[in-house]
Amino acid sequence: MADAATASYRFNHTMIRIKDPEKSIEFYTKVLGMDVIDEHDAGDFKLFFLAYNLPGQKGLPRGEREGILELTWNKGTEKDPNFKYHNGNDEPQGFGHTCISVDNLEKAVARFDSMGVKFKKRPEDGKMKSIAFVYDPDMYWIEIISHNKPQ
Amino acid sequence: MADAATASYRFNHTMIRIKDPEKSIEFYTKVLGMDVIDEHDAGDFKLFFLAYNLPGQKGLPRGEREGILELTWNKGTEKDPNFKYHNGNDEPQGFGHTCISVDNLEKAVARFDSMGVKFKKRPEDGKMKSIAFVYDPDMYWIEIISHNKPQ
Repeated sequence: MADAATASYRFNHTMIRIKDPEKSIEFYTKVLGMDVIDEHDAGDFKLFFLAYNLPGQKGLPRGEREGILELTWNKGTEKDPNFKYHNGNDEPQGFGHTCISVDNLEKAVARFDSMGVKFKKRPEDGKMKSIAFVYDPDMYWIEIISHNKPQ
Repeated sequence: MADAATASYRFNHTMIRIKDPEKSIEFYTKVLGMDVIDEHDAGDFKLFFLAYNLPGQKGLPRGEREGILELTWNKGTEKDPNFKYHNGNDEPQGFGHTCISVDNLEKAVARFDSMGVKFKKRPEDGKMKSIAFVYDPDMYWIEIISHNKPQ
């Protein structure tokens, strides 16, 4: 820590825009097992805050937590068949991915297959056998790693 | 939690690409107070893993943690004066921002001012007085909120 002034600082959340909350909430809760810990309806748009309710995080005020994913839904985009968000990996590049770590990559992949999850990269593709990438409903990339082999 | 199969799942990290690691590492460590907890040099590119070493996270294997920011440096981009990454808020939109929460927003803003940090939105700008947005060296947006007023 460079400065005592930052002792309270937390990496609270990462925000991505989503087209259709029904699809995204189903994906992040049912497939990835996150909980919706808060919502904020602002009229034209609505925010969803998702996280794993881990020991040490559960029950903390939202502002004190880490590991939150904020999904921003600009209402109406879900009705436009041509509307899509940019995933940051197609040009122009910037943001790359979020990453979920799991106890057992092989088991996680088998479960994703049983649920029809789409893969950008299966563990057996390419050189890096210990990582996978799946797509979320907006085609954002989500890296999947195991706890003991982070790359 | 929707499924016991996801009990081990963690929101491990968020990855963004950076142009110049000297500038980015200085910003995220000196200004935002994160620690570089790991690095991985892959030849053409290098990865930096940053996090707050909070109780309950410090000492955990990297794969078991939450709240990690992964910075990807594709070597050589820092030498091209015209090279820039896309921040996700200019068109085409997708990724929005990361967010750091702090104990005292006013104090954090005064400290950022003393360090020459550039603001996208100061707390007093617009209707939402309890949030600010600063730019990182690649012009990614970082929301700054206080622990007790997350929006």
